Amino acid sequence: MSEHKDRVVLAYSGGLDTSVAIGWIEQQTGMEVVAVAVDVGQGGEDLEVIRQRALDCGAVEAYVADAKEEFAFDYCMPALKANGLYQGRYPLVSALSRPLIVKHLVRAARQFGATTVAHGCTGKGNDQVRFEVSLTSMAPDLKTIAPVRDLALTRDVAIDYANKHNLPIETTKHNPFSIDQNVWGRAIETGFLEDIWNAPTKDVYNYTDDPTYPPLPDEVVITFEQGVPVAIDGRAVTPLEAVQEMNRRAGAQGIGRIDIVEDRLVGIKSREIYEAPGAVALIAAHQELENVTVERELARYKRRVDERWSELVYDAQWYSPLKNALDAFIENTQTYVSGDIRMTLHGGRATVTGRRSDSSLYDFNLATYETGDTFDQSHSRGFIEIYGMSAKLAAARDVRFGRGVNFDEDAH
Amino acid sequence: MSEHKDRVVLAYSGGLDTSVAIGWIEQQTGMEVVAVAVDVGQGGEDLEVIRQRALDCGAVEAYVADAKEEFAFDYCMPALKANGLYQGRYPLVSALSRPLIVKHLVRAARQFGATTVAHGCTGKGNDQVRFEVSLTSMAPDLKTIAPVRDLALTRDVAIDYANKHNLPIETTKHNPFSIDQNVWGRAIETGFLEDIWNAPTKDVYNYTDDPTYPPLPDEVVITFEQGVPVAIDGRAVTPLEAVQEMNRRAGAQGIGRIDIVEDRLVGIKSREIYEAPGAVALIAAHQELENVTVERELARYKRRVDERWSELVYDAQWYSPLKNALDAFIENTQTYVSGDIRMTLHGGRATVTGRRSDSSLYDFNLATYETGDTFDQSHSRGFIEIYGMSAKLAAARDVRFGRGVNFDEDAH
Amino acid sequence: MSEHKDRVVLAYSGGLDTSVAIGWIEQQTGMEVVAVAVDVGQGGEDLEVIRQRALDCGAVEAYVADAKEEFAFDYCMPALKANGLYQGRYPLVSALSRPLIVKHLVRAARQFGATTVAHGCTGKGNDQVRFEVSLTSMAPDLKTIAPVRDLALTRDVAIDYANKHNLPIETTKHNPFSIDQNVWGRAIETGFLEDIWNAPTKDVYNYTDDPTYPPLPDEVVITFEQGVPVAIDGRAVTPLEAVQEMNRRAGAQGIGRIDIVEDRLVGIKSREIYEAPGAVALIAAHQELENVTVERELARYKRRVDERWSELVYDAQWYSPLKNALDAFIENTQTYVSGDIRMTLHGGRATVTGRRSDSSLYDFNLATYETGDTFDQSHSRGFIEIYGMSAKLAAARDVRFGRGVNFDEDAH
Amino acid sequence: MSEHKDRVVLAYSGGLDTSVAIGWIEQQTGMEVVAVAVDVGQGGEDLEVIRQRALDCGAVEAYVADAKEEFAFDYCMPALKANGLYQGRYPLVSALSRPLIVKHLVRAARQFGATTVAHGCTGKGNDQVRFEVSLTSMAPDLKTIAPVRDLALTRDVAIDYANKHNLPIETTKHNPFSIDQNVWGRAIETGFLEDIWNAPTKDVYNYTDDPTYPPLPDEVVITFEQGVPVAIDGRAVTPLEAVQEMNRRAGAQGIGRIDIVEDRLVGIKSREIYEAPGAVALIAAHQELENVTVERELARYKRRVDERWSELVYDAQWYSPLKNALDAFIENTQTYVSGDIRMTLHGGRATVTGRRSDSSLYDFNLATYETGDTFDQSHSRGFIEIYGMSAKLAAARDVRFGRGVNFDEDAH
Repeated sequence: MSEHKDRVVLAYSGGLDTSVAIGWIEQQTGMEVVAVAVDVGQGGEDLEVIRQRALDCGAVEAYVADAKEEFAFDYCMPALKANGLYQGRYPLVSALSRPLIVKHLVRAARQFGATTVAHGCTGKGNDQVRFEVSLTSMAPDLKTIAPVRDLALTRDVAIDYANKHNLPIETTKHNPFSIDQNVWGRAIETGFLEDIWNAPTKDVYNYTDDPTYPPLPDEVVITFEQGVPVAIDGRAVTPLEAVQEMNRRAGAQGIGRIDIVEDRLVGIKSREIYEAPGAVALIAAHQELENVTVERELARYKRRVDERWSELVYDAQWYSPLKNALDAFIENTQTYVSGDIRMTLHGGRATVTGRRSDSSLYDFNLATYETGDTFDQSHSRGFIEIYGMSAKLAAARDVRFGRGVNFDEDAH
Repeated sequence: MSEHKDRVVLAYSGGLDTSVAIGWIEQQTGMEVVAVAVDVGQGGEDLEVIRQRALDCGAVEAYVADAKEEFAFDYCMPALKANGLYQGRYPLVSALSRPLIVKHLVRAARQFGATTVAHGCTGKGNDQVRFEVSLTSMAPDLKTIAPVRDLALTRDVAIDYANKHNLPIETTKHNPFSIDQNVWGRAIETGFLEDIWNAPTKDVYNYTDDPTYPPLPDEVVITFEQGVPVAIDGRAVTPLEAVQEMNRRAGAQGIGRIDIVEDRLVGIKSREIYEAPGAVALIAAHQELENVTVERELARYKRRVDERWSELVYDAQWYSPLKNALDAFIENTQTYVSGDIRMTLHGGRATVTGRRSDSSLYDFNLATYETGDTFDQSHSRGFIEIYGMSAKLAAARDVRFGRGVNFDEDAH
Repeated sequence: MSEHKDRVVLAYSGGLDTSVAIGWIEQQTGMEVVAVAVDVGQGGEDLEVIRQRALDCGAVEAYVADAKEEFAFDYCMPALKANGLYQGRYPLVSALSRPLIVKHLVRAARQFGATTVAHGCTGKGNDQVRFEVSLTSMAPDLKTIAPVRDLALTRDVAIDYANKHNLPIETTKHNPFSIDQNVWGRAIETGFLEDIWNAPTKDVYNYTDDPTYPPLPDEVVITFEQGVPVAIDGRAVTPLEAVQEMNRRAGAQGIGRIDIVEDRLVGIKSREIYEAPGAVALIAAHQELENVTVERELARYKRRVDERWSELVYDAQWYSPLKNALDAFIENTQTYVSGDIRMTLHGGRATVTGRRSDSSLYDFNLATYETGDTFDQSHSRGFIEIYGMSAKLAAARDVRFGRGVNFDEDAH
Repeated sequence: MSEHKDRVVLAYSGGLDTSVAIGWIEQQTGMEVVAVAVDVGQGGEDLEVIRQRALDCGAVEAYVADAKEEFAFDYCMPALKANGLYQGRYPLVSALSRPLIVKHLVRAARQFGATTVAHGCTGKGNDQVRFEVSLTSMAPDLKTIAPVRDLALTRDVAIDYANKHNLPIETTKHNPFSIDQNVWGRAIETGFLEDIWNAPTKDVYNYTDDPTYPPLPDEVVITFEQGVPVAIDGRAVTPLEAVQEMNRRAGAQGIGRIDIVEDRLVGIKSREIYEAPGAVALIAAHQELENVTVERELARYKRRVDERWSELVYDAQWYSPLKNALDAFIENTQTYVSGDIRMTLHGGRATVTGRRSDSSLYDFNLATYETGDTFDQSHSRGFIEIYGMSAKLAAARDVRFGRGVNFDEDAH
């Protein structure tokens, strides 16, 4: 009787691999499968259609959740405050969604009495680590299995199984791309891009139009409060709406295409293509608003904190104590990050052209070289003298030891 | 008799302010002036014309130096290896040239027996500090004066003086822009941009064409050896030629325009416009080649070192012990940064589309999801288990203390 | 009439220099002087005696405050949570008290309608910067003067003035030491120690007995809650009591003597002697409790944050935005820093011998090599394989390029 | 015939476990065993005795190396330059020796044609990772096995095997301690210390006498050249001699005992006891000489580099690219770290009492408050004004937004 069987909660996408996994896990392990589908803005099919397919494929229960608002609020906005860019480029698209999906997996596990969680990742990527470390951090008692990695569920096996069991899922269409997408962006891998000398082709992209042939420039004013976008062109927006509108407008201009060789958590380098029009434009706006409103030494330190935050999130540490403490730091820095940023979106570029803020630290009267200058230049000599003191003493020693600047070595 | 007078070496640009300063310094201090003009690729008048004008304005000696190659080799290339971008954006254009100019000032001071060095900077900018701290680090015995800051040589005073003494220099044309330029880029400040809500106008730019209406895309292959560009499209180039060619080609596509609110060394925020087409394109290429050839942990650490390097150079510490030690670190990291980067230059974007390197750490066989995969996925479970151990133990404590992830707080 | 005169609030110690400064400031500037004395645990005379002396020396008002509890709670405890040690050694004794004293100066300035604040520091130390930057950060409208630095109030002038005006203050006794002390420790400078080859003599010390001839060992158990000591040997203590008791007990064992060449904020190196028995013992206990209760990656990062925090506090940035944001980070890290530390105090050493905590991350069953071991060693091979992957790939490249480890270069 | 069998090189200590491992590996895997013993100053039996025992236990070859000088020169001296202390306390004793031992294992593997390397570590410690990652970094082609972890060679199995095969090794004596030692220090683990509330007992220690009852104070002068000790009390020493002499003299005073809860690389916390008298005393001397000779900003940055270096070495990354680049940085910082440090060794304390150096940055004339002062205090006001500028602007904003310092919240 099913109530006596162990249950496993499966992260279900509605696609071939996880549809087959429902039966495959039961066949290989004897456990019943609860399918969980989480909408993080990946688009595609209706959640209800997906739910029904899971049941048709043999799931004992199917749990679906529209988590788009939650994702934007609790995962994308912290990433925006941290200007979250791994290797200075990648806006952490998949790295952000995994912890949220795991949260729903755990909730479903509790609700349906499961002891185990399953995901569709392979054994050489980052996402298996993100799933499993997030799980371990949230529910140390739950076990994990990954059918592709642990139960030999290869693509060919999946197609055979689907055909043999007549599963309600397409098996014929070969998709050359491996894709993960959500409201914060889209990640694409594919065979021909594994040769890192090959350029991406046009069919790789979906969130962005070709920046080479852009429409007319699009000017936008984004209003932030404490690091979070609250209005676009004067209309109030939720975080989700802000990301969606910027995806649409920046996407139309081909903004946010990224092509990078990336250092994976599992120790290898891989080549990745991303599109994240909204994320890239919002981060550019947020950074410039920080330039205006965050004090210099804090800004310099935050830059390192932002990098470490991005590495941690990339490295599956969303729920870790260090990530949590860095959030406390970052939250503190956003107190005054409020105001308007005007940008021109055009031809792949999101260019800031104006900024204004009641909490600005830019002081016209100190900065101006025109009438109204209040900067007292008489302080500068004393400043320079003492500021340069330790370098001067070190330099005098260099001269004493014959290691001063060599004036004869100029020719090359 | 002049041989008994003290001498001051003046950083001479050939423009109104420093032309007047020649006589003004002598009048105010009784010292003879030796004019020094250094060509760092700023363009404009011929060095010989400038030399003659200095003499005509009363200099006892005039020293001119074509330092373009030296600048590219000894100052721009280290900046490229460090991906030198202050606040992640500004390629340190003026910050790089100041230490080199000071080197020539000191050399001239030694050659012509001067005790003092003079520069034309105001008392509220970064350059006064860069001049004086560089000087102190190279020649702790020399004194400094800054006529604008210390001898009340205002613009109005300068115009009056030039007219009265009939100096061979234009005084009528009002230039609304304050500009500093060299082969690595161009910096522009101007009154109307001191309102940070104002966008730059077209006449601000000179090194770059408008990216809104670009010519056809331009594909370029840059070859690096140990972090330095050595060939473009297969033709061997010197560092100077590399920067100049990329200035021309990336400039034609409107690449490298920067508009930023910046944290000055003297504690205020200012608004700056830069153009650095060659620098921006070369840094983008260099960064991606590092992605391919530098090991992950080294790359992560280098990112922080690069930031600190950029801050130090911005902060007038070119000749400081810490900058010197960071150079040793950076030099070590460049051992394998050799290979080709293919970029498309178009419409303000320098987009890397391909990379190849004999010293690549990208391993197709480890990265591929296709035939030939050599990554042993059976190691992953053990890795994840131990990699996630300390987060798991911390999470279990959170649960014990009732501070685990809250599954009820999702609604916003 | 006095109500029409400008007023200056003077940081008053009760000693010769600041007693003379009361009259001297009035004489030099025409301003009335309000004397402010703050008890931060420096010991010495009664506050009321000091208050009366200020009035006798000509102050129009005298404000005295017992700020010992406030100092311990708001300044020493944050330093303890940050394991605040400048250059890894100096517990920031004077650097902590200055911001608090300035707070009381500002309060008195508001209360008594003063426009200016005065302090007794010289022009080459750190404390002038701490006074003035703290002031600027708390009350940007107030001005500062430093009579010693700005009004030529030298020691000789002070003695003459006191004698001539018959001030109620000792002028004959020459104190060879320059001392600053509070409940967190004591700082000593003196002429013969300016030769850095000279060892300190016994008369330098006051808070500590000679560790060479200690009494019997003293065992103490300190109980912390969230980073703050709350009990000693089972008796509840306030932060102030904790510091005072540890000063007494660790001081009797000669713990906490520090002799260091230190990098001053004004760019020079100076030689400093400190005694801080309580601070040093408490920090040692706190650090080990962190070792037991703070997760590894958080602990590693906190180490850098602690260093930066200490540099900022040393560098007069107590009230700065970055210090504030680091506090948010540090506060977050202390959530679980609760438990008992047992130490043996003896002969200059504060040695931790035991630790226990309900929130410990030390797990006997994982750590033990005896019966009960729950660590699954089968994971280690997979972990090592993937953990070592990027180093292995880099090493293989070294071998390929003939730069592998050289086995022939062993002989020296 | 033996020449056709695969060969494994075993890190051989001469003790029970690795003596049994010789036969056990052959029995379990069919491979011949080459025993390798490396003397890194662990003391104990003669290398020749150990070599013979290995052969008697069935090794086909035995390779022994006196690597004490190599260890001191190539491993301890870099650690000294880096002030290498993991968690600020542990001098990396075992972490330093593992890479050197592996180097000799690889050399032996090449010499005797082995394909595999074996070590005696368990599966839950750091050393297995250090052995295997070092190996992978030096000889990516070699395989590893760990008999205890991979071939079920437990203690009981080992005793049975030794008795049954009549191996020439003691099996009856139960040693309650697990010990690793070399010339840089000694590490001790034991069952009763796994209760972290228990204090160490006297029998734990061997390199140090009890500091509670010390002999008379011992004054020593250590001379460094570029970060390396070259003379003690005026007598020239090699690095090895320096460490050995300081071990003896500081050990007699009970210096260098460490008791710490430590974060292992494999994610757990463990309790460790160390003794490292020479290392601790030399590092204290070296740090103070750096205080005298290294410029402030370089010293501050080096502190972070030293920490990262220590973490990397602890974490098995001795041969990694990042460790290598940090060495380049550190080497650069040691240029001027030359001079004498005088210390008093007594009762567990190594106290610096004097320092002198031709390359000192301490300038008596700038530091003194007595006659001869050359510090121009008139610069200080200008310095403070501009140094405090950004904090002041931020503070003024706090006041504007009602977030300034609260003067009413003092009471606790």
